[in-house]
Amino acid sequence: MVYSWEELSQQIEAEVNKHDFSGKPAELYDPIGYTMTLGGKRIRPTLCLLAAQLFSGDLQKAMNLALAVEVFHNFTLVHDDIMDEAPIRRGKPAVHAKWNRDVAILSGDVMFVQAYQLLAKGNPEKLSQMLTVFNQTAIEVCEGQQFDMNFETQTGVQVSDYIEMIRLKTAVLLACSLQLGAFEAGASEKDAQLIYEFGEKIGIAFQIQDDFLDCYAKQEDFGKRVGGDIISNKKTFLMLTALEKSDKEQIEKIKSLMSTGTTDEQKVAGVLEVYNELNISEVTKTAMQAYFEEAMLALDKIEATSEFKQPLVELAEMLMMRKK
Amino acid sequence: MVYSWEELSQQIEAEVNKHDFSGKPAELYDPIGYTMTLGGKRIRPTLCLLAAQLFSGDLQKAMNLALAVEVFHNFTLVHDDIMDEAPIRRGKPAVHAKWNRDVAILSGDVMFVQAYQLLAKGNPEKLSQMLTVFNQTAIEVCEGQQFDMNFETQTGVQVSDYIEMIRLKTAVLLACSLQLGAFEAGASEKDAQLIYEFGEKIGIAFQIQDDFLDCYAKQEDFGKRVGGDIISNKKTFLMLTALEKSDKEQIEKIKSLMSTGTTDEQKVAGVLEVYNELNISEVTKTAMQAYFEEAMLALDKIEATSEFKQPLVELAEMLMMRKK
Repeated sequence: MVYSWEELSQQIEAEVNKHDFSGKPAELYDPIGYTMTLGGKRIRPTLCLLAAQLFSGDLQKAMNLALAVEVFHNFTLVHDDIMDEAPIRRGKPAVHAKWNRDVAILSGDVMFVQAYQLLAKGNPEKLSQMLTVFNQTAIEVCEGQQFDMNFETQTGVQVSDYIEMIRLKTAVLLACSLQLGAFEAGASEKDAQLIYEFGEKIGIAFQIQDDFLDCYAKQEDFGKRVGGDIISNKKTFLMLTALEKSDKEQIEKIKSLMSTGTTDEQKVAGVLEVYNELNISEVTKTAMQAYFEEAMLALDKIEATSEFKQPLVELAEMLMMRKK
Repeated sequence: MVYSWEELSQQIEAEVNKHDFSGKPAELYDPIGYTMTLGGKRIRPTLCLLAAQLFSGDLQKAMNLALAVEVFHNFTLVHDDIMDEAPIRRGKPAVHAKWNRDVAILSGDVMFVQAYQLLAKGNPEKLSQMLTVFNQTAIEVCEGQQFDMNFETQTGVQVSDYIEMIRLKTAVLLACSLQLGAFEAGASEKDAQLIYEFGEKIGIAFQIQDDFLDCYAKQEDFGKRVGGDIISNKKTFLMLTALEKSDKEQIEKIKSLMSTGTTDEQKVAGVLEVYNELNISEVTKTAMQAYFEEAMLALDKIEATSEFKQPLVELAEMLMMRKK
């Protein structure tokens, strides 16, 4: 039988909920259980299991790797929330807000080790390969976070810099999650490379989609305030593309909207006006579609039955079709 | 030939200095090179090489493991300095003081991964064993740091709690460093366990020695102010032992010295008076000696020539005889 991504994500949710994250001292371990059971879409571990299924692997054996990437992802959220001074995570207080900064640093560090402990439970023959991609990914995620922070104050950020940043910050971990599942299941070197590429391209498309929705989602579908990125002067794919395509007058208009005392409504309306003049909505959808198609092309090339590819296609389509 | 610990620590210093810690973005990598070349005694990597030598291993192959424990140790310092709000590290600004908190968090995280990258370069057949002890150690070091922070505000801390805290915070990493060198060199399971025990006991003795020197070093030998732990109300081995041995009157005296508006000089003199009444200096030396002897006993049992054991004995004796 072939599991759908919904079924596998439910299995992961159940596994996370039955996993024992407790330990002593409590200040160190309580935040870990708290963070891990805050919910979330469990996309990364689901990708790991889907890749294991794709190559006819034992899903139970791949479960530790799936948990490893989920624990790692949540570790990055705990540390990122300190840096971003974000008080809320998934509708609840972030760890540094509920406990304090030091607890968030140190609990995060422990989660990082726990990710490695889970990884070490994978197929022993593949341990070295798995460690290599996991290490590389962990470093790249940190690089992506640092580039993202740098961009806030940096001028002259290009669209290509931005794509590289989201590749590092988001896409490589999706790719790594898939590749770990593939390694566990004994996929060929070539197929492991292709599934990585699939994840990387989907990840970039996913992040562009995030930027798109922040601007063009319907307010009734969207969880947050539509236009939030514009209000906070965020350098998104849309904004950077607009700046690259703008004439002098349009650049002046954007700059003046970003700096002077306009209301949030005026700012969103004004920037959207420029976006419309430049057709940014279509340009963004086209870019997203191009990455999506590159992902599908990589998946096509993988030597596996289309029956096993189908849940990956569905997950990818779901990510692209979402409204929030 | 047999290398002395001085020779091996110089080799490590040279290796650290020629290692390329650079990368992009610079905000992420500059602090790593900065931290790694601040100096220090390089005790942990030296122990790693001494253990590899003990079991006739290839020291060049063990070098990556030696660097792994040194990078890991320095990672813990970078994060600890944020938590302790310590502005100075080895006479220079700490990373969070020279750059900022976020840089220190994220550069620290990257160093943590780099430690794993170096570890992954070890003997592939031993990778799983090495990863297991390294993961366990990394978690324990975090636990030790959290216990240490908890002790600051906790009442009723026992000497045994304190020993467990320093075992976790300091000793296990010395033990792990030795065991990694032993694994690399292909030591037997039993010998790998014994060298771990040697490191663990030496580590505890070393930390008790630290507490002893803070109180009883000669000011002309000691780098910091003698009595600093007393002035800052630190729960050291000496203080906790004194509290356990004190009668009601002595406890009152200590408590009053710790809380009321005495000068630093009066406080140090007053606490030392109680320490002298209770013979704390001798009790501490005896405890230190006991751990030192347990360490030597473990070393004795290891199946290796005494010629190869000698540098380890010398390093242990140096740590015990030091005046600062």
